[in-house]
Amino acid sequence: MIRILGIDPGSQRTGVGVIDVAPDGRCTYVHAQALVLLEAEDFPSRLGLLCDGLEALLDEWQPQQIAIETVFMAKSATSALKLGHARGAALATVVRRRLPVNEYAPRVIKQSLVGRGAADKEQVQHMVRLLLNLPPTKLQADAADALAIALTHAHMSATAARTGVATHLLRRRGA
Amino acid sequence: MIRILGIDPGSQRTGVGVIDVAPDGRCTYVHAQALVLLEAEDFPSRLGLLCDGLEALLDEWQPQQIAIETVFMAKSATSALKLGHARGAALATVVRRRLPVNEYAPRVIKQSLVGRGAADKEQVQHMVRLLLNLPPTKLQADAADALAIALTHAHMSATAARTGVATHLLRRRGA
Repeated sequence: MIRILGIDPGSQRTGVGVIDVAPDGRCTYVHAQALVLLEAEDFPSRLGLLCDGLEALLDEWQPQQIAIETVFMAKSATSALKLGHARGAALATVVRRRLPVNEYAPRVIKQSLVGRGAADKEQVQHMVRLLLNLPPTKLQADAADALAIALTHAHMSATAARTGVATHLLRRRGA
Repeated sequence: MIRILGIDPGSQRTGVGVIDVAPDGRCTYVHAQALVLLEAEDFPSRLGLLCDGLEALLDEWQPQQIAIETVFMAKSATSALKLGHARGAALATVVRRRLPVNEYAPRVIKQSLVGRGAADKEQVQHMVRLLLNLPPTKLQADAADALAIALTHAHMSATAARTGVATHLLRRRGA
């Protein structure tokens, strides 16, 4: 059994999703939530909240592998910068625990879950619910995205194992 | 006596500079170096190195206040994103220690040290050396920038104290 933490970084909300992957590849839902960072008094404090929240999750759920979304194209240099801050804080937190980090582009995540790189958010959410056998209640959007990232890593690792591709070669797939 | 750590964040090299400020405003050099991150095997590991290095410096030098450069305008969304990662990792590290963070724009730093917002790097380095009474040997560029940021915070805090402006109002000056 391998436990994966998926992270969908954002400077307002960061989605986190934890799944277990059985040796036969079956994935089970463990936990998902959005870390809400907007209440912090200033931007640096948001990053502090993000790291505190991630540390608490790492302590509680003890994932063995981390999957995180790459940033494919920010709208502007300003939004790239903000997103970069959040992603940098998140990456630093997991890397300092010596956890292996696997990065997937949004297009790869959609392709992996829905079969189409241009799938919309609702389709991805629908597949997350189906694959993890979750009830059809509304999943918080960032939490769902984080589960999608974790599921993508589970699929990619299984494919790599079947085809004999070393997992580390997949680390930056689609990056 | 107040100890200030100045940080000039970068994803290849992060400059750090520590100074002491006496009650009369005189500043003394304590330590400066560049954290070289290029040797890390991948980008997430660079951020881990950055945080490890900062933690070690915080442990060793025990600064009470932090000053960091704002990002005024990145060349492209890609470089904004990389710089954002480094700055986010650095900010998260100091904020988690509950250290007050003060941000200064490059223009404000130059204005404070050289008297001109458009001063070049050599002039800033020259003033850093003069103000801290350092020998005229070559200061590593990122370390010198970090000292410049720490000196700017010392000057701004002194000005604020003289004019009765609360320091927290200065925190985002020029941001």
